[in-house]
Amino acid sequence: MYSFMNDYSEGAHPKVLELLIKSNLEQNAGYGEDVHSERAKEYIRKLIQKDDADIHFISGGTQTNLLVVSSFLRPHQCVISAYTGHINVHETGAIEATGHKVVAIPGADGKLTPCAIEKVLQYHSDEHMVQPRMVYISNSTELGTVYSKDELTALHEVCRSNDLILYMDGARIGSALMSKANDISLAEIADLVDVFYIGGTKNGALFGEALVILREDLKKDFRYLIKQRGALMAKGFVTGIQFEALFEDGLYFSLAKHANAMAEKIAGVLKKSNCPFYAPPCTNQLFPVLSNDLIDMLSKKFQFSIYEKIDENHSAVRFVTSWATKQESVDEFCEYLEKTLRI
Amino acid sequence: MYSFMNDYSEGAHPKVLELLIKSNLEQNAGYGEDVHSERAKEYIRKLIQKDDADIHFISGGTQTNLLVVSSFLRPHQCVISAYTGHINVHETGAIEATGHKVVAIPGADGKLTPCAIEKVLQYHSDEHMVQPRMVYISNSTELGTVYSKDELTALHEVCRSNDLILYMDGARIGSALMSKANDISLAEIADLVDVFYIGGTKNGALFGEALVILREDLKKDFRYLIKQRGALMAKGFVTGIQFEALFEDGLYFSLAKHANAMAEKIAGVLKKSNCPFYAPPCTNQLFPVLSNDLIDMLSKKFQFSIYEKIDENHSAVRFVTSWATKQESVDEFCEYLEKTLRI
Amino acid sequence: MYSFMNDYSEGAHPKVLELLIKSNLEQNAGYGEDVHSERAKEYIRKLIQKDDADIHFISGGTQTNLLVVSSFLRPHQCVISAYTGHINVHETGAIEATGHKVVAIPGADGKLTPCAIEKVLQYHSDEHMVQPRMVYISNSTELGTVYSKDELTALHEVCRSNDLILYMDGARIGSALMSKANDISLAEIADLVDVFYIGGTKNGALFGEALVILREDLKKDFRYLIKQRGALMAKGFVTGIQFEALFEDGLYFSLAKHANAMAEKIAGVLKKSNCPFYAPPCTNQLFPVLSNDLIDMLSKKFQFSIYEKIDENHSAVRFVTSWATKQESVDEFCEYLEKTLRI
Amino acid sequence: MYSFMNDYSEGAHPKVLELLIKSNLEQNAGYGEDVHSERAKEYIRKLIQKDDADIHFISGGTQTNLLVVSSFLRPHQCVISAYTGHINVHETGAIEATGHKVVAIPGADGKLTPCAIEKVLQYHSDEHMVQPRMVYISNSTELGTVYSKDELTALHEVCRSNDLILYMDGARIGSALMSKANDISLAEIADLVDVFYIGGTKNGALFGEALVILREDLKKDFRYLIKQRGALMAKGFVTGIQFEALFEDGLYFSLAKHANAMAEKIAGVLKKSNCPFYAPPCTNQLFPVLSNDLIDMLSKKFQFSIYEKIDENHSAVRFVTSWATKQESVDEFCEYLEKTLRI
Repeated sequence: MYSFMNDYSEGAHPKVLELLIKSNLEQNAGYGEDVHSERAKEYIRKLIQKDDADIHFISGGTQTNLLVVSSFLRPHQCVISAYTGHINVHETGAIEATGHKVVAIPGADGKLTPCAIEKVLQYHSDEHMVQPRMVYISNSTELGTVYSKDELTALHEVCRSNDLILYMDGARIGSALMSKANDISLAEIADLVDVFYIGGTKNGALFGEALVILREDLKKDFRYLIKQRGALMAKGFVTGIQFEALFEDGLYFSLAKHANAMAEKIAGVLKKSNCPFYAPPCTNQLFPVLSNDLIDMLSKKFQFSIYEKIDENHSAVRFVTSWATKQESVDEFCEYLEKTLRI
Repeated sequence: MYSFMNDYSEGAHPKVLELLIKSNLEQNAGYGEDVHSERAKEYIRKLIQKDDADIHFISGGTQTNLLVVSSFLRPHQCVISAYTGHINVHETGAIEATGHKVVAIPGADGKLTPCAIEKVLQYHSDEHMVQPRMVYISNSTELGTVYSKDELTALHEVCRSNDLILYMDGARIGSALMSKANDISLAEIADLVDVFYIGGTKNGALFGEALVILREDLKKDFRYLIKQRGALMAKGFVTGIQFEALFEDGLYFSLAKHANAMAEKIAGVLKKSNCPFYAPPCTNQLFPVLSNDLIDMLSKKFQFSIYEKIDENHSAVRFVTSWATKQESVDEFCEYLEKTLRI
Repeated sequence: MYSFMNDYSEGAHPKVLELLIKSNLEQNAGYGEDVHSERAKEYIRKLIQKDDADIHFISGGTQTNLLVVSSFLRPHQCVISAYTGHINVHETGAIEATGHKVVAIPGADGKLTPCAIEKVLQYHSDEHMVQPRMVYISNSTELGTVYSKDELTALHEVCRSNDLILYMDGARIGSALMSKANDISLAEIADLVDVFYIGGTKNGALFGEALVILREDLKKDFRYLIKQRGALMAKGFVTGIQFEALFEDGLYFSLAKHANAMAEKIAGVLKKSNCPFYAPPCTNQLFPVLSNDLIDMLSKKFQFSIYEKIDENHSAVRFVTSWATKQESVDEFCEYLEKTLRI
Repeated sequence: MYSFMNDYSEGAHPKVLELLIKSNLEQNAGYGEDVHSERAKEYIRKLIQKDDADIHFISGGTQTNLLVVSSFLRPHQCVISAYTGHINVHETGAIEATGHKVVAIPGADGKLTPCAIEKVLQYHSDEHMVQPRMVYISNSTELGTVYSKDELTALHEVCRSNDLILYMDGARIGSALMSKANDISLAEIADLVDVFYIGGTKNGALFGEALVILREDLKKDFRYLIKQRGALMAKGFVTGIQFEALFEDGLYFSLAKHANAMAEKIAGVLKKSNCPFYAPPCTNQLFPVLSNDLIDMLSKKFQFSIYEKIDENHSAVRFVTSWATKQESVDEFCEYLEKTLRI
């Protein structure tokens, strides 16, 4: 049964595997201090136009998030997140396990606003409460939406004015950047946030995220912290090679484009039937609201997940596409969906 | 310049890569709940003759160590290790970062003894001191030595009598098992320890360790803890596939055998010249004590590391071989070494 | 200016001081293993009719709360609290600093309900989310309300059915028990919760809380944990003596009764003027909603705190009385209040 | 049976109690923001001649130590201590529970030397090991010895050169300063260390330590950290009042002087008999090495503790005096000791 459950069901894009194979028997320096990692970092630095960005390759997203929060905050400081933020809901308390509170606040379509952040700042007024120090956003968000340039600029400003670190979780930043709803470049994002990561796991790699630290005062001793959290891989070159393949000639972006195109096709069918969406569709994650009958019928032929019960008869579901999603499977899905929607 | 620096300079054994390639475009369940991981676990369970062992694949050794300690100990409990133990020295305080003290004690050739453990127990008598709860050993040790069956049985008994969890770090367990000095099987080890891991990173995999939990009362909720520490990889099947390849027909052991054979050859040359050793050579790590002049000459042609200064004119060095070490490079090294030793 | 800011503005009740003075030059055993502590524990055990309750004296409430949560939970487990819960808002992330998430949920009048707890349990379904393990309630609550016997019984049942530890923060348990709204005895509370504490700081002591552990499986090694968090006072007898004085002949309860009577008097004046309350008044904390003009006038003569802005012209304020609140000051306050309310 | 077990068997010096009684019914601001605390801080600032020192009153020594280490270190940093250091041995892993390794090294008579510290710095060379950031010393030490001005100056210099924070645990700083072996003033100590505390618990108070932060960059947000660790007492004025009494006219020092004089008397008897000492006697803790027979005889009449077994027939014992030690009990003890030593 073909699956639209997530964007990490398959291995790596063949070009990534090729480079792994090609360099397999080279002797490389350990712990990420190899030439491939260096080359991959250079590609990314060039892309974001920041020669002095510190880049570290980490094996997964939760690992990256907990590293960022625990490295940059003092013990009494907290991170602000939308309720739907991955760190708030789906990381088994990984942030709290490093000692920090996640202060979660409402956010329309999974996005934070300056106004909501300012309310938190006003409320946390003295030493009896945690001190806000970081703002966590994800782009694309957990609901598949993207931040516009204006929205990010406004967040940047509220963070700058209040000495807050702005951190973007980019597990799906490829899909965000390739979205038709997007109006900002990666280089411009790098001007607005203090730290972010480029997700490899969900866009072409076997695993791996490229963490980019932009603020000078956050760079010091970061490798110590990676090691301490068990995230400094002995064969760091394995991650480096994968990012080398993804960024040497834009593969990362064409893969995300494909994922978006596959999702757009599915969204098209749904829109045509005036199907409502839980959050506006614009990246590789779709959250249509379907009748339970329809869901039952679809589940017989395809795999996907239920996101939230809406009422007695309807639920929001989640369809996810990826670089590996097959055109013919999407066609088949769309055809079946169309037919079913008509019933 | 050929390197004997460590056993993680190259990628994965070609057979491991082959299986990764072969299954690359399959759709697999996420988070290690896939068929490959299941198959790999079955191979290992069969090998250790424990049908109910819980097995989890983790990306690296420090990650595995910190998971084991932090999951099984209550906050006031500590783990006992030899001074040379990896958790005591080379993990940037990863164990302490989870809240637990490492009580480090002397151990000849990197090994712990029941007697030394009992001393710790006597000393830690009340609630003003941490409470010993786990014994950490590595096999082979950080000095390349191995535990005999008698030694492990004695450790098992002191742990059982004192309600201590016996944990074996098996980053190099392949090399230990294939050592000529070894007299115990993996199944017998599994009878004597409560939890151990089989290291993939240093013996044929791109990365990955197979953690084996044997004691019933330690199994509960372990996946929560993996997730919380950022160690639950979305594409868990990538690790599963590698262990499948390593254990479906004994590849793991033949790789370790090769590593040992390469080391033995080098050790032979050294022994012939009556070169002293810092610790008895028997696995893929050798610690000969060489004159500084000799070290200088060797360093011009080969890469390796200095382990410890012994006196003004001598140092212990560390030569490491692996599954990937080339016969011809060892021959060349031995020849050069022999020639240099004669000077 | 007389203060109704809080219930910890004065020192200890004279009878508490007297016993401290009387025993001052005795030589007592350290770390709470003295005869006074033992005697105080016996008084409390008798009161709650639990001969085998483990009792520990801790210096303050936040200290007690963090000890309880961090000692009884495994790393991946969380504690459920009302939004208004002290551990969620006013302890600077003390719980999170020990590694645990506080899952905060709405609760009318500061109280949790079985229904709200069950929702949390349903939502936290797998290892990607923290695992609920404890329910934190306070009695009286942070809004001055009390739990009825029925409410507590229902909470007890949902906790028992779901293997949750029920913990009552009793910083103001004296005032709760002496409330006219209360229908449960301390012994009955001890039948329904697994662990609770009796607050001394806010009811007659210089400082100190008596933590009572009822569940057998929670008792083990607790003194280790007290010591580790820096909460095992060398002169533990100083706390023991205070609780001895408070519980040898019911002083604790008569002090709470006085605090409540003082609050009731103030509440009477407010009710007579049909002043609305943010939460029903029944203990030593009152939360009337007053006009900003009235608040300004009152602030000129008395100290108290603003709790929350209600609308442009009104705020909820907080008046707190205690064992030390003077009858004549309350009279003066009531008179002034009455006069002002009439304007 | 009279006890020389420790210096925290009795309550507070009568003058301390008097001030507590006198101010008992005042209404004071909470959380240490009261006039008594302010006054006590002023006395101490004047004494150390540092107008801008930040001073916080904490309830106990372990609490203070864990606060200092966890507030000033980043997660990957460690604190260096002598093996005998209180934080290394007798705090149930309180430091590790906040995430930091204690790197323990040998130190003659409980004291650290620049040379031993430099060795640690050399060894901890890269990100695979914790990063030394703080040096913990105690004065007087756990063995009753004191640091000379030269020794402290040398430690100050090695810390300054290597960007290490020098922290002095002053649980018994009164006894150290009043020692005949001492050649440094409190003001001079404050010039050489970055942070230290003045112990009240063991020198006249019911409880309480005055933490003095001297380095500007360590002062920020410290009250948040106190609160987070459960150490911000609601009735902070209770500690403030005690330090007010101890420091308003030098009571603290006369009490320490008395403790030392009592110990000196006992030491005199032992020296006359050429009794060897485990560490040179100079403060209120004595560590004579006695025969087991003698120890048995003494234990029948007095309480004290065995420190360490020396050989089959001898042990080092520990006699402790305090501000509360009675002259007549010391006379009686000396007489009995003298008689017994002669046998």
